[in-house]
Amino acid sequence: MPTEVIYLKGMNKKARDNTPQNITFEGKRSTSYDVARVAGVSQSAVSRCFKPGASVSAKTRAKVESAAKALGYQPNAIARGLISGRSNIVGVLITELTNLNYPQILAELNRKFDEKNIHILLFTLDSESDVDKVLEKVWQYQVDGIIAAAQFTDTQISACQDRNIPLVFYNRLYPQNTVSSVCCDHYEGERSLVEGLLNNGRKSFVVMSGPIDSSVSTARTKGAVAQLKGLPVDMVELEGDYSYERACSLTRDVMGSANPKPDAFVCTNDIMALGCLDTLRIEYRAKVPKDISVVGFDGVDAAAWLNYDLTTVIQPLERMVEAAVDMLLERIENPELPSEKRLFAGSIRHGSTAQLD
Amino acid sequence: MPTEVIYLKGMNKKARDNTPQNITFEGKRSTSYDVARVAGVSQSAVSRCFKPGASVSAKTRAKVESAAKALGYQPNAIARGLISGRSNIVGVLITELTNLNYPQILAELNRKFDEKNIHILLFTLDSESDVDKVLEKVWQYQVDGIIAAAQFTDTQISACQDRNIPLVFYNRLYPQNTVSSVCCDHYEGERSLVEGLLNNGRKSFVVMSGPIDSSVSTARTKGAVAQLKGLPVDMVELEGDYSYERACSLTRDVMGSANPKPDAFVCTNDIMALGCLDTLRIEYRAKVPKDISVVGFDGVDAAAWLNYDLTTVIQPLERMVEAAVDMLLERIENPELPSEKRLFAGSIRHGSTAQLD
Repeated sequence: MPTEVIYLKGMNKKARDNTPQNITFEGKRSTSYDVARVAGVSQSAVSRCFKPGASVSAKTRAKVESAAKALGYQPNAIARGLISGRSNIVGVLITELTNLNYPQILAELNRKFDEKNIHILLFTLDSESDVDKVLEKVWQYQVDGIIAAAQFTDTQISACQDRNIPLVFYNRLYPQNTVSSVCCDHYEGERSLVEGLLNNGRKSFVVMSGPIDSSVSTARTKGAVAQLKGLPVDMVELEGDYSYERACSLTRDVMGSANPKPDAFVCTNDIMALGCLDTLRIEYRAKVPKDISVVGFDGVDAAAWLNYDLTTVIQPLERMVEAAVDMLLERIENPELPSEKRLFAGSIRHGSTAQLD
Repeated sequence: MPTEVIYLKGMNKKARDNTPQNITFEGKRSTSYDVARVAGVSQSAVSRCFKPGASVSAKTRAKVESAAKALGYQPNAIARGLISGRSNIVGVLITELTNLNYPQILAELNRKFDEKNIHILLFTLDSESDVDKVLEKVWQYQVDGIIAAAQFTDTQISACQDRNIPLVFYNRLYPQNTVSSVCCDHYEGERSLVEGLLNNGRKSFVVMSGPIDSSVSTARTKGAVAQLKGLPVDMVELEGDYSYERACSLTRDVMGSANPKPDAFVCTNDIMALGCLDTLRIEYRAKVPKDISVVGFDGVDAAAWLNYDLTTVIQPLERMVEAAVDMLLERIENPELPSEKRLFAGSIRHGSTAQLD
């Protein structure tokens, strides 16, 4: 069985013959030279057959395909990437993978990239402060571009730009002109939910934020606060962490001490809203939405479950992912394209946990 | 700014000089030759500094590190992979990414591999029948190994073996000696749940399976059926699809027609158990667990929510992932290692939706 030797494109015969054995691969893969020999064509003809868009006659293609099939030949994407400058790998940096929203995002990203024969090298972050550590690793792979669902500093953004690696942020907004992003309009989504609650006569609000370093939660919280500020209503801001358990415990704190009791809980994600709702109903026998309204944000599956039917804002996840993929691919093709920011409006899900007027 | 040229290890000076310009990279990355020049050392000394375990003096290392920092040099992992035969990339094939369990698996996998500086190239499958299509793509990357949470045919397993790519299955069991896998003992977990229900006096069972092509669901269903067969109890098998919605609709079918009504719903995953539970309580005012028991399988977050407190079997996910990663890494280091199957017992979560005696 032949061992595979990587001959760089354009390397002349002499260089090839001089290439020592220790750069061969382990394994028994057939090479393009084996295919060329069996097909009775040149190696460059074989190479063209596996290069999208390259010119090759139908006759040659038929011979090459038949030989390749017989030999079990597969072009090596990594080697081709070294030569073409394209790896067909995109780095995806993502925090909070256990957040119920992320698996859907990842599945969508994978589906869209897959259509273009591009694959995802996955980097998950425990917290947004790990970006530096992860980027050190990203540089070591020849990724064609990066989708980041994590917060970068200006220095980190510049580092990508210096390396000519196109970068599109997912659900992160940056004021800078030079940064591309797709984002749900968290601020306006939350603001309009709160406006609906106000119009329905709610007067005493609890706003439960997510983790302090989450820019998404910050935008949602700001939207709620902006709508309430200056009005003759009560407002308490509580720091949650997006988890069900913490939402339960914050809800207990409020219900055990606040006087008068709040009549609206504005939770900046669905999971917290579900924890709040369960606590109110099960531990305090609260009538939702008659006495207390509860709203979430995201549109996770569980929001639509019979027991919850949560009033929330649905992010147009599929459209957002499609936009992020399109924007990144365009910039991989043409790195000179100006940056672009796309902001998608969320849609309100009118459930039975809050009435909005 | 210098452009980067990939010089294969051991290529002699003449070959290097003959290497034409068209194999250069786009971009402005510094090369190990630039670092060597600035540090006043040989290129091979630079190379050794970035190779784990290679011998290099402290003095040389200091010079190289300072030069590398000044030039923003990063060793190219892909090029290094071509030379060493190792890419430090592992392919992960996974179905049903939107299944609530998978994000946790993926996060765990990533955490464990990350400790070894290995990264995940992610391939998601819409259904298990897409394996062939995905493997075609996997071959094109020089993955060091594969973790598969999907069902392979014998031919597909052989294809990995022929290519010397170590393969470890996650939650898939194969009778063949040659296949390595980690698996939760789905059969025994489900059987013991049903045994507990029988001991508690349940007499009329509904067993709700997952998708017909899921081997995990099949093992769970078989465990339930094996425990019930031959006993003087009623049993109905229904084909679900692991989804909340389908579980609701199957529960309605049963409650609307069965006579006598069942007193135990054995759902082969938690999400279906939650749909079943909501339907029973909300639409049929059923007393759970007094009149009807409901059990799930998996131990998803929502199973522990106040409103559910589901009786279920918890998979030891973290230990399973750790075992899968260890087994794969061992086989990447030493491909001659015999295959191994590790079967982990699930632990019963005694919630309030079923009493087990």
